[in-house]
Amino acid sequence: MGNRKMSLSCPMPKLDFDTITMAHGGGGTLTNQLLEQGVFKLLKNDLLDSHHDGAVLPISGPIAFTTDSFVISPIFFPGGNIGELAVNGTINDLAMCGSKPLHLSLAFILEEGLPMTEFWDILVSIKEASEKAGVQIVTGDTKVVEHGKGDKVFINTTGIGTMLPKADIRIQRVQPGDAIIASNCIAAHGISIMSVREGLEFESDILSDTRPLHCPVANIIEKFGPDIHLLKDPTRGGVASVLNEIARDARHGIYLDEKLIPIDDQVKGACEILGLDPLYVANEGVFLAIVAANAADDVAATLREDPACAHAAVIGRVVEDHPTQVVIRSGIGGKRIVNMLVGQQLPRIC
Amino acid sequence: MGNRKMSLSCPMPKLDFDTITMAHGGGGTLTNQLLEQGVFKLLKNDLLDSHHDGAVLPISGPIAFTTDSFVISPIFFPGGNIGELAVNGTINDLAMCGSKPLHLSLAFILEEGLPMTEFWDILVSIKEASEKAGVQIVTGDTKVVEHGKGDKVFINTTGIGTMLPKADIRIQRVQPGDAIIASNCIAAHGISIMSVREGLEFESDILSDTRPLHCPVANIIEKFGPDIHLLKDPTRGGVASVLNEIARDARHGIYLDEKLIPIDDQVKGACEILGLDPLYVANEGVFLAIVAANAADDVAATLREDPACAHAAVIGRVVEDHPTQVVIRSGIGGKRIVNMLVGQQLPRIC
Repeated sequence: MGNRKMSLSCPMPKLDFDTITMAHGGGGTLTNQLLEQGVFKLLKNDLLDSHHDGAVLPISGPIAFTTDSFVISPIFFPGGNIGELAVNGTINDLAMCGSKPLHLSLAFILEEGLPMTEFWDILVSIKEASEKAGVQIVTGDTKVVEHGKGDKVFINTTGIGTMLPKADIRIQRVQPGDAIIASNCIAAHGISIMSVREGLEFESDILSDTRPLHCPVANIIEKFGPDIHLLKDPTRGGVASVLNEIARDARHGIYLDEKLIPIDDQVKGACEILGLDPLYVANEGVFLAIVAANAADDVAATLREDPACAHAAVIGRVVEDHPTQVVIRSGIGGKRIVNMLVGQQLPRIC
Repeated sequence: MGNRKMSLSCPMPKLDFDTITMAHGGGGTLTNQLLEQGVFKLLKNDLLDSHHDGAVLPISGPIAFTTDSFVISPIFFPGGNIGELAVNGTINDLAMCGSKPLHLSLAFILEEGLPMTEFWDILVSIKEASEKAGVQIVTGDTKVVEHGKGDKVFINTTGIGTMLPKADIRIQRVQPGDAIIASNCIAAHGISIMSVREGLEFESDILSDTRPLHCPVANIIEKFGPDIHLLKDPTRGGVASVLNEIARDARHGIYLDEKLIPIDDQVKGACEILGLDPLYVANEGVFLAIVAANAADDVAATLREDPACAHAAVIGRVVEDHPTQVVIRSGIGGKRIVNMLVGQQLPRIC
């Protein structure tokens, strides 16, 4: 549990129980105690209606709507935990749609026997991540399954955002000539999880890159509007799989230049030791932007002004050649096809 | 597996795999195959954007927003399965907010080894339930956990509905004198699950009452408007726990007349055999309406015109006496306090 942060700012209230039991999911007194004295108290805001079946939200429209269940193992990892990951992950999916994240739902599936201290730390992380990003948890659900029928905590977050007026993010807008920008160094999240799972120790800790990306996204949409053609965050399957999906759906080719792809030296070294291609390693705090060629350098420069995107770089372009395929020019000059991830590189990464 | 319905209308496509594997959650080729040839193909609609991180919805507010994770065991039960339960459950939570359900997200946590035929049957039920209720599945997520780290299938559905113009559903509107209406016979869902778990056989099958309730709800809101003060569906914890929550939050007393509470004879008999109080048994297709006294009989009569509410009845009233407590007059005339469910009666009922 070396990766758990202490919740000094939000000490756990005194409760009648130390661990989660089946009765916490039964809908009776213990469910109510867990919610009233734990979840609702901590996450309280003016829209979180703790005593109804849902929230009523003043929205006007069009909205983005996205869902993600998080099953990452371990639940505490270098640089974060499943709670902030669940908040940031759905915020980022909303951002990739070209929306401003506003409201999240939060649903837990807890395994019987989960220590309440661990659940509390996750709740505190959820509170802090949602406050930091300016989104509100407005409705939720808590279920409990028997020991051995779950794995500590699974979290679903589903999000609503309002569309940014200048956003026009669609696969149909991806055209030959467009530049591909990576918003930051790749592969940190997957390697951080791998290191803790395999008990590896690197010279310095490699931390997950989990972070909200809606601010840099809103910034480039505001500044470059329709020059931003598509946004995707390369989580499961990594940069390679996401670019393959884009190439397939856009029916164009994608050309990458390996030496332009930003990657931290530590992460690169860890990938070499582990025999992993960083293009297939999951990211949580990186996005890919497909942008009009003439705006590309300015978009990358704008992104680099944000510490979350300090290493933003143009890494390739959309091409007419080899439609539906991703081709990379390697560091030593050869070209090879980069396929979608086959099989499973690293399970339960998010 | 005697409770599985065959999906004759939607035969399963020929796939390269018979069971769910970890790679189906890896974000690569197998994830894509499962989604493209399975989920998206079956659930296809004009808003389900199969290749982005979320859906963009034309909505004008205010909206209701609600989430529920379903962990019911077994996943196939008399009268339904986890798929239609997940659709109907969230539809009903939206209805209880006084909204018209429009859009659902759908997130699976699958256990490695799940037979594809079982997953397919669940998908078909989801398709059928959503079509029947007129809601669209617009975005989703699929994760896979190792065998022994989940339990076949967990489903999260999160829903969006637009508020019905005449709805004014709030706990603050619950007043002494209000009538309490049960929309139909209680306790069928819990008993159906209990029977299959315990291997009990009753004279005739007791089926789960899982069904969408938004039509009868919209009907009484349209007809009686502000006379409908509060709506709640008594799922986990049953009628007793939900009425205790209402009494606590409204700070009034609740008085029930046991002989007025509709219950099927078979279900009542099963409760007696199992030693269960039907007031604590979960429902999935019943709601409680707290309505103005002068409208109560008309609301109940209107509900009874709908086959889903054939046994709707006034079962009690809100009172000034014994604030925050629920008191029942039993069939033989005595009075007793009905507390919130203590502990856990029947785990994983939804």
